[in-house]
Amino acid sequence: MRKAVVLLSGGLDSATVLAIARQQGFACHALSIDYGQRHRAELDAAVRVASALGAVEQKTVVIDLGAFGGSALTDDNIAVPTGGVQQNEIPVTYVPARNTIMLSLALAWAEVLGAQDLFFGANAVDYSGYPDCRPEYMRAFENMANLATKAAVEGRRLTLHTPIISMSKGRIIEQGLALGIDYGLTVSCYQADSGGRACGVCDSCRLRTAGFAAAGVPDPTRYRPDRVR
Amino acid sequence: MRKAVVLLSGGLDSATVLAIARQQGFACHALSIDYGQRHRAELDAAVRVASALGAVEQKTVVIDLGAFGGSALTDDNIAVPTGGVQQNEIPVTYVPARNTIMLSLALAWAEVLGAQDLFFGANAVDYSGYPDCRPEYMRAFENMANLATKAAVEGRRLTLHTPIISMSKGRIIEQGLALGIDYGLTVSCYQADSGGRACGVCDSCRLRTAGFAAAGVPDPTRYRPDRVR
Repeated sequence: MRKAVVLLSGGLDSATVLAIARQQGFACHALSIDYGQRHRAELDAAVRVASALGAVEQKTVVIDLGAFGGSALTDDNIAVPTGGVQQNEIPVTYVPARNTIMLSLALAWAEVLGAQDLFFGANAVDYSGYPDCRPEYMRAFENMANLATKAAVEGRRLTLHTPIISMSKGRIIEQGLALGIDYGLTVSCYQADSGGRACGVCDSCRLRTAGFAAAGVPDPTRYRPDRVR
Repeated sequence: MRKAVVLLSGGLDSATVLAIARQQGFACHALSIDYGQRHRAELDAAVRVASALGAVEQKTVVIDLGAFGGSALTDDNIAVPTGGVQQNEIPVTYVPARNTIMLSLALAWAEVLGAQDLFFGANAVDYSGYPDCRPEYMRAFENMANLATKAAVEGRRLTLHTPIISMSKGRIIEQGLALGIDYGLTVSCYQADSGGRACGVCDSCRLRTAGFAAAGVPDPTRYRPDRVR
């Protein structure tokens, strides 16, 4: 069976990508990155999701991106916005070079495993304000990766799969449900509490909530009791 | 003064690159990566070198690449070779995707600082067996980086400088000495002891020793007393 490294945050999107990679027949090695994000409960969810969806193994690598600052997700001095998603603007929840760093780590693991496939749950629809969620960025990363490694130089080319990059949130959820995902296991909130309960008002919660509505299915998210509706 | 992020290992090559960046007038922010390498003394050297060469600040970011294994530099079960450099072969001291990960972290810090210049001491002559030391890799990384960040999307392009990529070790040393570097502060050995004393027989030591001989200057390296000559 071909091996793949799947970046797994513990959120809805990456869980769906893991299920897609499994359905395509890959032996999936799930990689989660603890980059100092506020939403630690997402990492706990990653462990549960990897197990529920049949990953071969799951690894969490720690790297303190908070050392650089510059994002609401890693810097306690910058508030997570809760006023609704602004289109055509890069939000303060953007973490500088985060996707490049995560993909680089996935690349390292893939080379050690002898895997030639990376799966990544980037989405250019919801995250239109994030430069490193765009298809042209993904192609440039894949091109660079194929010059970076011993494997590539020896002819074993690497493919970066981004199967949900052009899907709406509703479509992603429909796909995942068809593949049997229990989205109640996933945590997407930027400021979930330690029990994994969502705030309901950050950008990530708003996108997720709207996605279940668009898909016409019940929202299995556990919200904090003090949620403002 | 324009800001630059300079990757600084504490070795001879990156110290020279820091001196070059300073001479070009950059305010230099030195970034060292603790990736679980055996040669910890190199990181202590990075602190001394940054200070001696007038960096604005020096930061060490920790990331455990040993979690993936696959290299003699991070895996205690793989011995560091001491039998001499083999050309046209990728050595076991190659760390999978190491340069991609280090450059990604430099990119993140550059974006937070508002810096548009990265300096990296890659060398395609000595490390001809490392795929991620080649000029074509560097161009692909720069291209990817310019699609990855908010800064680049907003028109502040990033330049990846690799000033010593085509220089012989002897030429690098001549350059550095002309810029006033005390190479006695640097540590290049893959298995230096905790005091920073070099083994004299690993590939990195062999290249360094030969470099001082080629430059026709005394070798200021402190060697371990049990060095085999």
